[in-house]
Amino acid sequence: MSTSGRPYHHGDLRAALLDAADALLDEGGDGAVSLREVARRAGVSPTAAYRHFADKEALLAALALRGFEAFGAAMGAAVAQGAGAPHVARGRAYLRFALARPGRFRLMFGPLLARSPAHPDLLAASRQAFTALQANAGGRDAALRSWGMVHGLAHLLLDQAIPEAGEAEALIERLIC
Amino acid sequence: MSTSGRPYHHGDLRAALLDAADALLDEGGDGAVSLREVARRAGVSPTAAYRHFADKEALLAALALRGFEAFGAAMGAAVAQGAGAPHVARGRAYLRFALARPGRFRLMFGPLLARSPAHPDLLAASRQAFTALQANAGGRDAALRSWGMVHGLAHLLLDQAIPEAGEAEALIERLIC
Repeated sequence: MSTSGRPYHHGDLRAALLDAADALLDEGGDGAVSLREVARRAGVSPTAAYRHFADKEALLAALALRGFEAFGAAMGAAVAQGAGAPHVARGRAYLRFALARPGRFRLMFGPLLARSPAHPDLLAASRQAFTALQANAGGRDAALRSWGMVHGLAHLLLDQAIPEAGEAEALIERLIC
Repeated sequence: MSTSGRPYHHGDLRAALLDAADALLDEGGDGAVSLREVARRAGVSPTAAYRHFADKEALLAALALRGFEAFGAAMGAAVAQGAGAPHVARGRAYLRFALARPGRFRLMFGPLLARSPAHPDLLAASRQAFTALQANAGGRDAALRSWGMVHGLAHLLLDQAIPEAGEAEALIERLIC
């Protein structure tokens, strides 16, 4: 039963659990996510939550996968709408994606991926993201340098490591051009 | 008293505590560092450790500061010894520094800095590091792009996010040139 007293449809509960986990991720990073708290927020028992996710890692992997889907959509939309060069549009969209939801970004590209053999769908999604970043980038090494740049700037901005960084959006437009 | 039964000289205990904390940082990141465990490894009581560091954050800030000193030395040595251009030597040294001790690297540039007003010496050290990165880099924005690139590649390598990255040293030499 949901908090409103109506039972969830099967797929709806999974989505509701992921939404609750996403909110926890935003509030306190992956350390703040627990299946028990996710269940509580979705208004169901822990047992009901465990029917959808075997453990916290499975929940985080599903969150990261949903993150990569949103990432792909954001990159595609940026290139489709962008007035400028595709690699500029992608680079700016990458930084905006990271800054909009730091917890999601850190989860997607964080140490969870290092354990990726356990999550083949997540591994496939992250490789697809890199393939998309390589399009029109001038080859694999040039793509890695560009990826490094936007990924590093995202971390430096999120960790407030850049002295006198000023307003993030202005910095993004000045550096990614 | 140290584990050998001889008492520490004052400055020696502080250094011994920092060494123990550095080892814990390497083993499990900043989550693995505690003043109690650091004291145990140095062979002194927690009370003796608290005489040098008020709390865990003070200990981590001192570790990060020591990291920035090592970082400055590594950058200087790379430029002094390097056969190639200074910015290439610095970029490669940056990545090698990060990969050699991931825990220290993540601590130095991680969220602790965001609370930097409480650690003015740490803030000064991190700004000095950025100033050094800017030398011969072609201006502040070019330096930020270069910093972003090596910082991002460091994170992507540490988090094993690059598909078929191969051997790190070969990648470093190919990408930073």
